[in-house]
Amino acid sequence: MTVAPELPNPDDLGRPWSVGEPTPESGWLSDEDLAEARGRLPMVYVDAVPVRVDASGDVVSVGLLLRMDSSGFTRALVGGRVNYHERIRDALVRHIEKDLGPMALPQIPSSPQPFTVAEYFPTPGITPFHDVRQHAVSLAYVVPVAGDCHPSQTALDFDWITPEEACSDVVQAAFVNGQGTLVKQALHWCGRV
Amino acid sequence: MTVAPELPNPDDLGRPWSVGEPTPESGWLSDEDLAEARGRLPMVYVDAVPVRVDASGDVVSVGLLLRMDSSGFTRALVGGRVNYHERIRDALVRHIEKDLGPMALPQIPSSPQPFTVAEYFPTPGITPFHDVRQHAVSLAYVVPVAGDCHPSQTALDFDWITPEEACSDVVQAAFVNGQGTLVKQALHWCGRV
Amino acid sequence: MTVAPELPNPDDLGRPWSVGEPTPESGWLSDEDLAEARGRLPMVYVDAVPVRVDASGDVVSVGLLLRMDSSGFTRALVGGRVNYHERIRDALVRHIEKDLGPMALPQIPSSPQPFTVAEYFPTPGITPFHDVRQHAVSLAYVVPVAGDCHPSQTALDFDWITPEEACSDVVQAAFVNGQGTLVKQALHWCGRV
Amino acid sequence: MTVAPELPNPDDLGRPWSVGEPTPESGWLSDEDLAEARGRLPMVYVDAVPVRVDASGDVVSVGLLLRMDSSGFTRALVGGRVNYHERIRDALVRHIEKDLGPMALPQIPSSPQPFTVAEYFPTPGITPFHDVRQHAVSLAYVVPVAGDCHPSQTALDFDWITPEEACSDVVQAAFVNGQGTLVKQALHWCGRV
Repeated sequence: MTVAPELPNPDDLGRPWSVGEPTPESGWLSDEDLAEARGRLPMVYVDAVPVRVDASGDVVSVGLLLRMDSSGFTRALVGGRVNYHERIRDALVRHIEKDLGPMALPQIPSSPQPFTVAEYFPTPGITPFHDVRQHAVSLAYVVPVAGDCHPSQTALDFDWITPEEACSDVVQAAFVNGQGTLVKQALHWCGRV
Repeated sequence: MTVAPELPNPDDLGRPWSVGEPTPESGWLSDEDLAEARGRLPMVYVDAVPVRVDASGDVVSVGLLLRMDSSGFTRALVGGRVNYHERIRDALVRHIEKDLGPMALPQIPSSPQPFTVAEYFPTPGITPFHDVRQHAVSLAYVVPVAGDCHPSQTALDFDWITPEEACSDVVQAAFVNGQGTLVKQALHWCGRV
Repeated sequence: MTVAPELPNPDDLGRPWSVGEPTPESGWLSDEDLAEARGRLPMVYVDAVPVRVDASGDVVSVGLLLRMDSSGFTRALVGGRVNYHERIRDALVRHIEKDLGPMALPQIPSSPQPFTVAEYFPTPGITPFHDVRQHAVSLAYVVPVAGDCHPSQTALDFDWITPEEACSDVVQAAFVNGQGTLVKQALHWCGRV
Repeated sequence: MTVAPELPNPDDLGRPWSVGEPTPESGWLSDEDLAEARGRLPMVYVDAVPVRVDASGDVVSVGLLLRMDSSGFTRALVGGRVNYHERIRDALVRHIEKDLGPMALPQIPSSPQPFTVAEYFPTPGITPFHDVRQHAVSLAYVVPVAGDCHPSQTALDFDWITPEEACSDVVQAAFVNGQGTLVKQALHWCGRV
C-alpha cells in the first residue's frame, strides 16, 4: 500500500525548524508566506462533489454547502488546499472531515485519476473557474458519502439536492468561482443529466 | 436518477413471446441462440476487480476467484455477460452477487467510465485478452467491496491478496484469457505498483 | 503493438462457412440474423464526437452530421456497430471514414478508456439514450479530426459548429436518441462549457 | 474556446511590480523564492509520455530523453513545472517544445483529465515517485507526437523505443524519481502491455 506520510524529518526538508514555526498542520506556511506565494505560484487544490448513491452506484443526490459571504448566500463544494507533504487522498479525507464532520464516511476514490482538473485563475474568463485570491489547480473527484454530514462552522448548512436541482438556474446562480460548472461536469461524467 | 429497467413490454421488443421462451433472467436467449450469436456478434461483458481499500481509498488487497478447469487451478476476476435490456451497473451488481454472494456490499462506481475496455478475441494475439468461445468487449471497473464474500458454486474459493502478490509471476501464471494483465492495468490505474 | 485482426480462420470460429454467407464486411451477420439478435442481445457500438482543436488541444468546434428522416432534419454523431472480430479502434476508423470520407485524418485515442458509455435502450426513460431498434452499449470517444470531411451518402451534410452552438436549445432539439446529451457530456469532459 | 491567458494585469494580482522583478516567463518567481517555496508548498507539474501512434491510434513507440547526471546516464519523460497564470495545456506545449524542439507537432489531449496524477515526495517510499528537491503533484498525459523531435541542450538524446523495451528491466533501471513506473502506468492505460 502507498503510505500516508508522517511528519517529515526536518533533515528531509533541507532546513531546521523550531517552536513557533509553521507546523505541518498549518501546511508549513505562515499566513504571510502563503499570501505572498499565492501571487507567484499555482496552488494545488482538491474539489470533492459529495453524492449519495443507490445500491447500483447511481447518483441519487448531490451535497452542497451553504455559505454566507459579502455577496450573500452562496453554494459551495467541499475541498481546499493540498498541504506540503500531503497525499491527494489524505487531503480529500481532511477537507471532507473539516467540511462535513467526522461521521460522513466518504468513499475516497481508489484511483488518483480525477474526473477533471479545474483551473481557477485570478483573471476571469480564461476558464470557467475564477479565484480572485490565486491561481489554483484543483483535482476534482466525485465522492460517495454514506454517513451523517454536519457542516463545520465555516458553513451555515449542508443540503442534499437532486442532480436536476443542482443543475437548475436558481441553484447554479448561487455558486461562485464557477463551481456550478464543476457540479455539472461531475454529473455529466456520472451520466446523470 | 436513471431507472433500473423493468421487464420490457413485449410490444417494445417488436415481437410476442410465450411461456417456455427464454426469460429476461436467461438474458432473453436460448443456449442454442447464444452459441450461434457468439460466432457472429461481439458480446457485451463487464469485468470487476474487487478490492479492499483503507479509509483514504488506497487499495490494500485484491480479490480473486479460484477455479478448477481442464487446465487445473486458475485465478479469475468477477464478471460476465451483460443481458439484453440490462444496465451496465445492474450487470455489475448481479455478477458480483453471483460470484461473491449477497453480503459483499460492493461500491459500484458512480460513473460508467471504465478504467479500460478489455477486448477478448477468439483469435489469440490480437490483444492481451483471449476467449476461445467468443469475441467479448468487456467494460472493466475497480469495485471496492466492504462486506463478506462467499464464492458461489462455480468457484472453489475467493482470496484477498496484496497487489504485489497479484502481480507476482506465480499468481499471474494462474490467470487465463489474459485477466492477469487486466489486474495489472487496474492496479497501475490505482497507483498501486 | 496490438494487432489489427485479419479475417479469422473458420477453424477458429468453430464453424465452417461457404460462398454466399455473410462476409466479414457484413459483420458476419445476415440482415435477418441481425434483426433477430437485436431483440435478444445488447449490441456493441462506438460513438465518436468529431472535434477541431487548436495547437494546445482545446476544442474549437464540434462536427455534426445532418440527416433527413421521418421526423425531418436531424443531427447525429459519427459511429455505428462494432463488427465481430473487429477492434474498437478499427471500428472507430471505419465509421469515421464511412461518415466523413477518407481524408478526415482522425486522431484515434491511444487509450481504449472512453469518456463515457452510452446505454441506448429500446424502452425510453431508462437512460438519456434511446434506440427503438435495439439495446446498444456504445463506447464514446472524442476524436480530433484534422483533415477534410465529406459526408457520405447517408448524410445530407456535415457542419462544424461551436461548442456553445452545439449545446444551444435549437441544435439540441435536432438530435434524436439522446445524442445531444452525449455531445454535452463530451464537451463537459473537455472542459468546454 | 477557453482562452490562453495573456500577461496578467498587475492590478489583478493585487500587487504592483517593477522592472527587474521576476517576469511571467520566469514563472513569477526568483530562484530564491522558488527554492524557499519548494520547502513549503506542493508544486504543480505536468508529465508527458510522448508516443508514436499508428493510423488506428495504437501506440507503436515511446519517446524517452537521455540525460547525464551525477548518477550517470538516466532516462526521463518530458515535462516540468506549471507557471503562475499558465493553463495546464499551455504548460504541456511549452515543455514539449522546450524538450523536443519546435517541430514535434504534439497532439495535446482535448480533455484536462490526466491518465493519472503522480505525487513526487521529498521523502522516499510514500508513493512510487520521489523528488529530493520538492513535493510535486504532476498531472500525467500521454501525448502523441507526429513531427521531428530534437532534444534540447538539457538532454543528450531522445530515442523512440518499443513499449516492450520501455518496460524492460534495463530501461526501467535507467529512470530516476520513479518515472519508469509512470511509463508503465501510461502503457497499461493505453492497453499496450
